[in-house]
Amino acid sequence: MKKSSPETTHSDLDTKTITLIESIAGEVRATIDDGKLPDIKLPVRSLDNVTYDEGKGYFELGDARKTRSLTVSTARSFAQTLRLMATSRSMVEHDDFATKREVYYISKNWGDCRFDEQVESDAIMDDIEAMASMQGLSREQLRFYPESHGGSVAGLLTVIDRNPATGEAIEIDCANLGSGAYSIPRSAEHLTFRTDAQFVLAIETGGMFQRLNNHRFWETARCIIVEMGGVPTRATRRFIRLLSDKQNLPVYCFVDCDPYGFTNIYRTLKVGSGNAAHINRFLCVPQARFLGVTPQDIVDFGLEDATHKLTATDIKRAQDALRNDPFIIAHSEWIAAIKQMLQMGVRAEQQALAKWGLNYVIDDYLPRKLVNTKGFLP
Amino acid sequence: MKKSSPETTHSDLDTKTITLIESIAGEVRATIDDGKLPDIKLPVRSLDNVTYDEGKGYFELGDARKTRSLTVSTARSFAQTLRLMATSRSMVEHDDFATKREVYYISKNWGDCRFDEQVESDAIMDDIEAMASMQGLSREQLRFYPESHGGSVAGLLTVIDRNPATGEAIEIDCANLGSGAYSIPRSAEHLTFRTDAQFVLAIETGGMFQRLNNHRFWETARCIIVEMGGVPTRATRRFIRLLSDKQNLPVYCFVDCDPYGFTNIYRTLKVGSGNAAHINRFLCVPQARFLGVTPQDIVDFGLEDATHKLTATDIKRAQDALRNDPFIIAHSEWIAAIKQMLQMGVRAEQQALAKWGLNYVIDDYLPRKLVNTKGFLP
Repeated sequence: MKKSSPETTHSDLDTKTITLIESIAGEVRATIDDGKLPDIKLPVRSLDNVTYDEGKGYFELGDARKTRSLTVSTARSFAQTLRLMATSRSMVEHDDFATKREVYYISKNWGDCRFDEQVESDAIMDDIEAMASMQGLSREQLRFYPESHGGSVAGLLTVIDRNPATGEAIEIDCANLGSGAYSIPRSAEHLTFRTDAQFVLAIETGGMFQRLNNHRFWETARCIIVEMGGVPTRATRRFIRLLSDKQNLPVYCFVDCDPYGFTNIYRTLKVGSGNAAHINRFLCVPQARFLGVTPQDIVDFGLEDATHKLTATDIKRAQDALRNDPFIIAHSEWIAAIKQMLQMGVRAEQQALAKWGLNYVIDDYLPRKLVNTKGFLP
Repeated sequence: MKKSSPETTHSDLDTKTITLIESIAGEVRATIDDGKLPDIKLPVRSLDNVTYDEGKGYFELGDARKTRSLTVSTARSFAQTLRLMATSRSMVEHDDFATKREVYYISKNWGDCRFDEQVESDAIMDDIEAMASMQGLSREQLRFYPESHGGSVAGLLTVIDRNPATGEAIEIDCANLGSGAYSIPRSAEHLTFRTDAQFVLAIETGGMFQRLNNHRFWETARCIIVEMGGVPTRATRRFIRLLSDKQNLPVYCFVDCDPYGFTNIYRTLKVGSGNAAHINRFLCVPQARFLGVTPQDIVDFGLEDATHKLTATDIKRAQDALRNDPFIIAHSEWIAAIKQMLQMGVRAEQQALAKWGLNYVIDDYLPRKLVNTKGFLP
């Protein structure tokens, strides 16, 4: 363990979180002291209240607000909202956290305002998260952590964490984990980084990640590799975003050539998802670009006989994207790529490159792609 | 990176793998040279050919064999079996590996004996794996790696890996990864360990793992914590098994109190699964014992109001286990526990302990359980 300067940003945000919670609670209290019924204003979390701003690069929550007033019928959810905010405040003060499931169980000692089902606590947590997001605070800063950990990381990166007991800095050298890797924690807010890498390579499958790691691709390519394992979890997205922001690194995505890879995995990483617009500003990675596999790669790298026919679901997903996905519609390159895929009638997995030998991907495909990063899909 | 002695066990097994492949191929060749039609004998991989030996502690493949003879109708699968064995040999020689999906794609250049679907290559790989298992060789030693990585690890453990390019030893200190963790690679065969820990704690959920890791439970409890993330993957099972074998460490499992936790997660970790009997000898962890959550814990720790009613699926699974699961039937303690759960009519998650406060699990539950490890379910 080595000493480093304290992570000021992290505790600044903690102060901001407590201030936000106290100001809302203070208003509720003042209204009651005035003999009136209190209310809390919360952003509307529905697709109607979502906009896509190409400049900002992510789906964003609009200005619509709903008001949770204290009435006979809302007494329970009103109290639950306040208690959940108090829980969050207490966790910030004690440097602790809770998963969504734990939050649900904590309420079992709240008497009449206990949650009967987790879906109730999740909805109220989403409300509080949406409210906090308007102040630039994420769910992780409220100390509500996702259940799923992040993907694996290896390469030219030192992660600087801290010992929660002593505050001492802990440095993790991701170039020195052998065939293993660094597993991203559920919250990355407190992490800082040191790196000589030139880019981050975000990889769809675990198998491909293991191949690039075992052959130390990151050493020759001067990069950091991250395993997404399908659609990346919150923790993975936030980690890549923070890493890219703080170190000013481009992010290249290496994903299957199919509508799911384009519109679910890559699109979610880059701009976020429509039904969670209040969190996209923290989780999306606007710096991301799509390295491949592209429909043109199938031709350029002779993968025709290692493809699979598009399924009916694939075709529907692609057509929906062309018609309704604001991100796709905003980029003519993506429209052309998806149309090319539909015209070819096939999809290709990143493992299909193994047709030319297990390490063709390392020796040929990636080097050839990486000489022309400007040609990556947006 | 520090130097260490070369991993002799690993290369001994490589020699054994190549010898096995050469001897089978040699027999086929000799038979053909004699002007006869060759055949290959493979273990039967069906439930009929599975036995449970309590002494050994795992489901095991029986003696039944099937013969794959070269005929007009088997020419393709016979050739595929030989080519897949040749692929395995080549990977051992080049210190490489392939996922099941990659193996399928490699065949795209095999002309008429290419695999049309992955289900074909998987079946032949299972045959070869079963054959190798009779010689004490696992699928990983054949260099066929699973797609899924293992769970996360933290605590009093140094993993000793090697740089595949230089052979230099790489040491990973799992007590020094902050809020992150060590992600278990797809193959653990080449790893060695150094530890002062007194036991391994295998944890069902990621959320609980993060809690114990962030609060450095492993430091006070002198242990290694492993996140299973539901039913543990091959990589996680093999890692725990090797760690426990090589360091002579007991393994305690901390799992939800429900039939899925008992008979799927715990039972799979401890004795393996019935439909993959040829691999259980490598993957099962006979040292494992069940710390909790037990039905009696619900009473002892006052969790009654944080339980959920057993579903119809839960009840069916529990009743099936009592009737048909050779592992459960062999242990009266498990029969009693499952009957108690059925009688109580409820299940409890490990997160339910949060009812008494987020860190009740660290401050009360685990310490109280760990004073009586002899009382753990077998």
